[in-house]
Amino acid sequence: MPEFRVILVSPRHDGNIGATVRSMANFGFSDLFMVTPCEITDEAYKRAKHAGDILRSASIVDDLDHAIEGCDLIVGTSGIITQGEKHYARIPLTPKQFAERMKDYDEKVALLFGPEDAGLSQEDIMRCDILVHIPANDEYPILNLSHAATVVLYELHDLKPRKGGPRIASEPEKALLFQFFDDLLDSIDYPDFRREKTKVMFRRMMGRSVPTRYEYYTIMGVLGDAAKKIKKLENKDEADQVE
Amino acid sequence: MPEFRVILVSPRHDGNIGATVRSMANFGFSDLFMVTPCEITDEAYKRAKHAGDILRSASIVDDLDHAIEGCDLIVGTSGIITQGEKHYARIPLTPKQFAERMKDYDEKVALLFGPEDAGLSQEDIMRCDILVHIPANDEYPILNLSHAATVVLYELHDLKPRKGGPRIASEPEKALLFQFFDDLLDSIDYPDFRREKTKVMFRRMMGRSVPTRYEYYTIMGVLGDAAKKIKKLENKDEADQVE
Repeated sequence: MPEFRVILVSPRHDGNIGATVRSMANFGFSDLFMVTPCEITDEAYKRAKHAGDILRSASIVDDLDHAIEGCDLIVGTSGIITQGEKHYARIPLTPKQFAERMKDYDEKVALLFGPEDAGLSQEDIMRCDILVHIPANDEYPILNLSHAATVVLYELHDLKPRKGGPRIASEPEKALLFQFFDDLLDSIDYPDFRREKTKVMFRRMMGRSVPTRYEYYTIMGVLGDAAKKIKKLENKDEADQVE
Repeated sequence: MPEFRVILVSPRHDGNIGATVRSMANFGFSDLFMVTPCEITDEAYKRAKHAGDILRSASIVDDLDHAIEGCDLIVGTSGIITQGEKHYARIPLTPKQFAERMKDYDEKVALLFGPEDAGLSQEDIMRCDILVHIPANDEYPILNLSHAATVVLYELHDLKPRKGGPRIASEPEKALLFQFFDDLLDSIDYPDFRREKTKVMFRRMMGRSVPTRYEYYTIMGVLGDAAKKIKKLENKDEADQVE
């Protein structure tokens, strides 16, 4: 059973903050970070009702980096769903699917909610391992901030702790895998204009599959060996030509 | 698929009414009755956002009888769960279980939400065919009115046929990807005794991440290019040595 941190990115209405905090208490969550929030007035405390403690002990930070510190999996919520397949970065899980995958997960998870109306920026979305989208009516799919949080937290509350599954790869381990993937792209002269997109896509695929430590190391071994072999053969080739 | 009517019984804060109406629009519901509501001011319309039409066309009635007229199944929501089995009237379904049962139902269903804090009266609850309870934290289980409505409507929205998301890779496409992965293992002289295990692991990871067609082709491109490059460099190397 993972630990969850709720991160509100630049929330603009403190009533929404209060309502979200109440929902956190209702579903048993208490770790709250806010990135550059609006002013927090009495309205927030009024809407938080009996959950004022969560609001009082929330961490307020200047940027997302500080908010996600110590989290191993970054999960974004998005009210917009991709139309074309090529928008790889926006292919999301439903809250149900997401909760299902969290059953075997045991680390610290950051749940990002973007500002009202605008939602998470493309830049923030690119940092996410998993995107979650709440299926809604096409004609008006944008939920209120606290409603979106309510649905996601409701699904996660349903999680029952499952005993000792395989260990999941940590953030530094994953960073290493992505580095190996990047090296491989280097070694095959992958076109620059597609590189960033492909890297994010790979990260997202790995995020959705929630690999174990063993799986990470195995894939890393294959990708790393391929990149090394290409480099070695190329060096040899150059050396041969100098002779 | 049944038709649903949302009935707010004596709501006291019109902000909550507006927020509930927005959620109705988000999840594709529009039939709203209110029994003796508080005054509906601009705040309700502000919170309803783009769903003001639902609020304008809502029916306001004096008692529950008028609100449930024409409904075949009366469903109450309750924030309080029974302790003893004898209070049969209060043994509830979760929103998931309720939505599940609605799949085979085809009539008109009334969804009752009680006043903030107090909830539905014992008398109203006795009239319900089904009670729905949202599982929540024992220490603070009472959800905000619009949050409770959001969870129930979210589960019911899931009943509706969903439109095609991004195209998922087909079985032959996937077989091709696994072939490319195998070629890459070949090219890096992957040890035979680990090969089968690693192939199955990769297949399993891809299975869990449910990649789109676009993702499959992109990963296939990277793996295929790496294998091809190694082969080409090796051939060149051999040719150089023959010279």
